[in-house]
Amino acid sequence: MQVDSEDEIEVSPFDWPKGFYSDSTHAGLKPDGDDMGWIYSEVPAEAAGVYTTNQFQAAPTTLTKQTINLNYQLQAVVMNSGNANSCNGEQGISDAEMMQQMVADRLQIQANLVGIASTGVIGEPLPMAKIKAGISELKLTKNVGLTKAILTTDTHPKTMTVKCVINDQPVTITGFCKGSGMIHPNMATMLGFVTTDAVISGSQLQQLLSHTVDETFNQITVDGDTSTNDMVVVMANGQAHNQPLTDTNPDYSTFAVAFETVLAHLAKEIAGDGEGASKLVEVNVKGALNHLEGQQVAKAIVGSNLVKAMIFGEDGNWGRIMQAIGQTDAHVDIDGVSVSINGIQLVKNSMGTGIDDAEVSATLKNKVVTIDVDLNAGSAAGTAWGCDLTYKYVQINASYRS
Amino acid sequence: MQVDSEDEIEVSPFDWPKGFYSDSTHAGLKPDGDDMGWIYSEVPAEAAGVYTTNQFQAAPTTLTKQTINLNYQLQAVVMNSGNANSCNGEQGISDAEMMQQMVADRLQIQANLVGIASTGVIGEPLPMAKIKAGISELKLTKNVGLTKAILTTDTHPKTMTVKCVINDQPVTITGFCKGSGMIHPNMATMLGFVTTDAVISGSQLQQLLSHTVDETFNQITVDGDTSTNDMVVVMANGQAHNQPLTDTNPDYSTFAVAFETVLAHLAKEIAGDGEGASKLVEVNVKGALNHLEGQQVAKAIVGSNLVKAMIFGEDGNWGRIMQAIGQTDAHVDIDGVSVSINGIQLVKNSMGTGIDDAEVSATLKNKVVTIDVDLNAGSAAGTAWGCDLTYKYVQINASYRS
Repeated sequence: MQVDSEDEIEVSPFDWPKGFYSDSTHAGLKPDGDDMGWIYSEVPAEAAGVYTTNQFQAAPTTLTKQTINLNYQLQAVVMNSGNANSCNGEQGISDAEMMQQMVADRLQIQANLVGIASTGVIGEPLPMAKIKAGISELKLTKNVGLTKAILTTDTHPKTMTVKCVINDQPVTITGFCKGSGMIHPNMATMLGFVTTDAVISGSQLQQLLSHTVDETFNQITVDGDTSTNDMVVVMANGQAHNQPLTDTNPDYSTFAVAFETVLAHLAKEIAGDGEGASKLVEVNVKGALNHLEGQQVAKAIVGSNLVKAMIFGEDGNWGRIMQAIGQTDAHVDIDGVSVSINGIQLVKNSMGTGIDDAEVSATLKNKVVTIDVDLNAGSAAGTAWGCDLTYKYVQINASYRS
Repeated sequence: MQVDSEDEIEVSPFDWPKGFYSDSTHAGLKPDGDDMGWIYSEVPAEAAGVYTTNQFQAAPTTLTKQTINLNYQLQAVVMNSGNANSCNGEQGISDAEMMQQMVADRLQIQANLVGIASTGVIGEPLPMAKIKAGISELKLTKNVGLTKAILTTDTHPKTMTVKCVINDQPVTITGFCKGSGMIHPNMATMLGFVTTDAVISGSQLQQLLSHTVDETFNQITVDGDTSTNDMVVVMANGQAHNQPLTDTNPDYSTFAVAFETVLAHLAKEIAGDGEGASKLVEVNVKGALNHLEGQQVAKAIVGSNLVKAMIFGEDGNWGRIMQAIGQTDAHVDIDGVSVSINGIQLVKNSMGTGIDDAEVSATLKNKVVTIDVDLNAGSAAGTAWGCDLTYKYVQINASYRS
């Protein structure tokens, strides 16, 4: 997407958009630190969401989807870590509904304006007494603690604030997310929240969100596993008082680029903070027959355990990249593929270029590794992000509950 | 498949079937030990093969497929480890053809009766002088060294001999294989060879092989990566002089069961010897709508990195099994799934049964872990095999070439 003037979009220090409030508290769902919080808008906000494709969708995810789909509106979202409220049957559903009602009562708003998000261990009942006590502690502040309270195995909060000008009005978009393991296309054990003061309808927001998630969150993979709880929720409360952001608004593309800037940053933050990851891996595919195939091949490479272990080992064993490409059913010029790692061309016409291993290995010490592939089968492209496979990934996942 | 009398099939110590010879030698493709060898039948044998689905099929694999498909016959197969002769362009093809011709010359048979199999590092030219010298060393013996010479990261040879009686004639089926990493459905970096003295036509053999591979080798996964070199080749030289094994031969099912016994054993051997594996994992799914969906769900569970790391950690975190099931698009009774680990039921009606973790953890110390799943959506079943994900897997794959 093109914008006339890139400098209309500015990355800023963390800031809540106009009319949004937040808070967090320690409810005792995790041993230490804040594990619960909320976002609140002073007026009902237009809302949109994207949800896990896992067949066992957790109760809070199902409830939030139902709530948003009523009329694309939310005024608050309550969140907790430490317990996913997933695979808890009827009890899980009624607990999620009770949590929604408790927040509505405390904020004196309708329950169908409250979204719910839970993340943590699956199959343990939500401790409702702790949840209730936690909700009673929450206030309306401009604190940033919530971005930390939703974390599980993440090593740091992931946030992004972008400011832009829409019809001469300053607009803020602020996103934050959590996600480290079970990260894979079509959502993962990730929660993402985006708030903005822009004026935009819920249906327009849904269309923009669905498209942008396909290009960002659905192009990251940590371990190929998708979770039961994933969602990305957006709230737009209109307090910037710009002209409504319809397709025909000349500044729509500025907003869309700013929005994608936020989501792409968060997606890359998740990939780079994958469980045990030591490196962020970006794969750029060109020469694809179409965009979908470019995306497919990029994801196949970044998702291959063998490629991921090779990058951890700082080894330029390009045969594994060829294997990952060949496993897909994307169109490929079998004798015409090129592969570069960190700008060093290792494969030309599907054969090794004879570059010295040591030269590649040296660049693989970088924290960011870029793999460029040309399939030579068309003119479309695709990009995906992931991380290396490390001893620490195994350690974290061998003892998640212990 | 049913046989009237299971005791017609007997597992035996390793033995080559009548009329088969073998040998191995150190050609210098690997630093130590034998790295090359062959199988030879005293008469041309009926032959069949199944090959990798990777788009970058290695030259030896393509050549062997072409050779077998000429008229379903082979008299010899030459094999090497240490070099996969893959992604070597025109040079790779002419080297594979030259290797085939060298063996034909040495054995004084036609080149189109010689199969070729290579495994090892991708993208390095085959050292033809070493190959030539190696072939000149090979003899016709009853040695078992070949089963070791084809190994790469495997920790031990994988062999199986089964004897059965077909129309009152003793028949032997002997298989061996290699494979440890890049193991995934639709072939992997695995080579499998089955020899038998039974009388069976090439086309019947092909049909039996394709069906049996779907139930065995295509149901194992180590790391989700498929290789460029995989194949399973069968040779039947007819020296047992039984009645031809057609569909209508009353003893056909005995042979088919014996054949599946060999392949299933080898498949499980590969899964249990997955790179760095400490445990063999068997997943049995029942209650599937159809067999294909049962197979799909079994593979999804056994292939999940999170499930694999959990088993390594000896942790009964069944939520990960539910996630793996939910990621598939197989029919599932969302509120009616059961899951057991090592016979202990952890999930009933898609909810935890409240079993004490310690009880499950204790059984996860076993070398073999069995996961039973009931999808409650039908009456079909499926089975898959894999292994745990360990520190050693990462170590092996971070430094394969170093």
